[in-house]
Amino acid sequence: MTTSLEQSTPALAQDDPEVAVLEVARRAREASRALATATRATKDAALRALADALVAATDRVLAANAEDVARGRAGGMSEGLLDRLALTPERVVAIADALRELAALPDPVGEVVRGSTLPNGLRLRQVRVPMGVVGMIYEARPNVTVDAAGLALKSGNAVVLRGGSAAASSNATIVEVLAEALAAQGLPRDLVQSVDAWGRPGGVALMHARGLVDVLVPRGGADLIATVVREATVPVIETGVGNCHLYVDASADLDDALPILLNAKTQRVGVCNAVETLLVHRDVADAFLPSALAALGQAGVTVHGDAATLAHAPQGVATVPATEADWGTEYLSLDLAVRVVDDLDAAIDHVRRWSTGHTEAILTRDLRASERFVAEVDAAAVIVNASTRFTDGGQFGLGAEIGISTQKLHARGPMGLAELTTTKWVVHGDGHVRP
Amino acid sequence: MTTSLEQSTPALAQDDPEVAVLEVARRAREASRALATATRATKDAALRALADALVAATDRVLAANAEDVARGRAGGMSEGLLDRLALTPERVVAIADALRELAALPDPVGEVVRGSTLPNGLRLRQVRVPMGVVGMIYEARPNVTVDAAGLALKSGNAVVLRGGSAAASSNATIVEVLAEALAAQGLPRDLVQSVDAWGRPGGVALMHARGLVDVLVPRGGADLIATVVREATVPVIETGVGNCHLYVDASADLDDALPILLNAKTQRVGVCNAVETLLVHRDVADAFLPSALAALGQAGVTVHGDAATLAHAPQGVATVPATEADWGTEYLSLDLAVRVVDDLDAAIDHVRRWSTGHTEAILTRDLRASERFVAEVDAAAVIVNASTRFTDGGQFGLGAEIGISTQKLHARGPMGLAELTTTKWVVHGDGHVRP
Repeated sequence: MTTSLEQSTPALAQDDPEVAVLEVARRAREASRALATATRATKDAALRALADALVAATDRVLAANAEDVARGRAGGMSEGLLDRLALTPERVVAIADALRELAALPDPVGEVVRGSTLPNGLRLRQVRVPMGVVGMIYEARPNVTVDAAGLALKSGNAVVLRGGSAAASSNATIVEVLAEALAAQGLPRDLVQSVDAWGRPGGVALMHARGLVDVLVPRGGADLIATVVREATVPVIETGVGNCHLYVDASADLDDALPILLNAKTQRVGVCNAVETLLVHRDVADAFLPSALAALGQAGVTVHGDAATLAHAPQGVATVPATEADWGTEYLSLDLAVRVVDDLDAAIDHVRRWSTGHTEAILTRDLRASERFVAEVDAAAVIVNASTRFTDGGQFGLGAEIGISTQKLHARGPMGLAELTTTKWVVHGDGHVRP
Repeated sequence: MTTSLEQSTPALAQDDPEVAVLEVARRAREASRALATATRATKDAALRALADALVAATDRVLAANAEDVARGRAGGMSEGLLDRLALTPERVVAIADALRELAALPDPVGEVVRGSTLPNGLRLRQVRVPMGVVGMIYEARPNVTVDAAGLALKSGNAVVLRGGSAAASSNATIVEVLAEALAAQGLPRDLVQSVDAWGRPGGVALMHARGLVDVLVPRGGADLIATVVREATVPVIETGVGNCHLYVDASADLDDALPILLNAKTQRVGVCNAVETLLVHRDVADAFLPSALAALGQAGVTVHGDAATLAHAPQGVATVPATEADWGTEYLSLDLAVRVVDDLDAAIDHVRRWSTGHTEAILTRDLRASERFVAEVDAAAVIVNASTRFTDGGQFGLGAEIGISTQKLHARGPMGLAELTTTKWVVHGDGHVRP
């Protein structure tokens, strides 16, 4: 075990993970009480102090990170993952700046969502309040540790973190730095805690801490999210899996369609709002597919096409005959499933069958087609005549983004700070009894 | 098996419950598509047609209900439960009228929750849409069958019902009548289905139908709710358990306090917003407790008091020394735990320790005390100077009530029709690509 891990691991680490993690969650809940009634000024000052502390601790953080990177390299981690794991002085500054940007955002807590005076004179207000304790389960990148802590604190919550073991030393040191900075601000250091010291069983215990943890947000690949959804008894907000479709209707503006397709597929391939399947109305297959497939090929995309699609593929474009598995795959790579459909109904049916409910787009100049697609497709975001890549908290103007929810409860689509809060009904009477 | 059960049980009932219930859920999902884009006029006409059909089928419903009542009586069911189970022509009319009242409520679907035009010209709207398929798991009372179906349909959802076995014949017949009436309206009969034919395993299968059922609402006792929360992989909205407190502060208006206490405890004892623990500031224990305990005794309430409380109990009041178990008990009966506390902090600490997060009330004339109680108590509803009995969808003016959520995700407190919907982001562009 590394030095930085030892420093952050209390005596409890030897204990039963279930017991130890419940104790962490209990301390988080107690600490959250201090933050629930804190003013925005207090929270923002704390966020700025955390940013300063992180930058001041750059050497410590980089030393811990170097341990992770060395362990990763020894374990044969790919260069791409090593790059995501590695911190530099510039990256530490960028992570700290993100905390300062959070401080500049409005505080969701205290917003009066609705209110009225009832006929009997009772005064009713529904007010936004913090959840209490937010759990975050995520993978390798150490910047998520800071990001998650910042989002939780800004929205008035304590946070319990479970990061990937690949970044264990970095995360342990970062949590330590943040906790020390909180204490220096007169806030409980238990507002930011990690359960990494208890490994995988600690993560499972966190998923079962119902009543102590109010919400769990998994951030990472499909496997991680599926595990959390299956295991957790704590309420979960499911994020991120995006098998997104782009449908080019018979009446689409084909001059617009090509740049939108390339943007949706190739601007960033590893993200959940990248397009994974292209559907083309058969009436425009001749006019659109040859140039579209050529451009995709040029961009390095492998086309997984049905027979009608492959018949239009020019020489030199990498193609694979599509199987049903392709319709259900979120590639997150330079691959695209392509299918020619008979009409709008067939397109909607395909989307309804294979969508993960993230983002679905139609390109059309036909008003009725756009309205039917919007009404009948069931997804967090339905986009008309634009790239799927716009489904994003930043792009939507929501400020900081916790993730993109693909479930229907509580939050759907890009989640901002408000989604880490709940509401409380406050009722004022004057001796009222119910008749 | 009774005739009415046989009529409503398709061939699938002999199959594996897991397979059969998933098929029911799949049909519900398909049927929900027809309702998702239905206008309010269509839905309201359907609700009125269901009401008419129920009244027209009174004889059939009462015959099935008589089977349940006979079975219940043979099985030794208490008179109270038999009364809740039994239907009469008048009760059928009342159940039908509730559907007509639902038809008169505004439609939550289509509401634009927020919207804006982004700097790049993308037009953004967040629109309220149906969930899709709502699952409802509940206990004996057959009126809940109609109620749940009506709430789901009004909010544009298909519903899959799992009722208590005690009302199996009544529920099967009611579902049949509703499905026939839907078909007569040109709507899919699969919009209202029951999985009662597959018994307890069918209920469990419904809890596991993730991806087909969008939300599960358990309605019933604490055991039922705990089971659903533990078992379900479908997102659950937890309802109802209310260990509610009433705190009489040092500065309370004691003339108001007595009627509020009696109202909160005795107006209806079996409901989740009835008070279960009374906390009294020690400075007013002498002035308040003797008369309060006498009045409670008069009303038939047994007082489970701490030593300081019992010292104030007049002759003839039924008292029991309170143990810690009393602080954690939702009696739902003519029992009340009573404790004298040293100050506001002790009251808040007691509430934070034992609250189920339903409704907590303070009686005070001190502004700071009321503000601290409101800010520091973590519950769906915090009430100042009024009875806990006001936490109710009808009382809050929300129209129909699905239940009272005690969780923090999605819905907290009384849930109206809007809580059976989700939202969809609709984005309109004109060839936009993300830079």
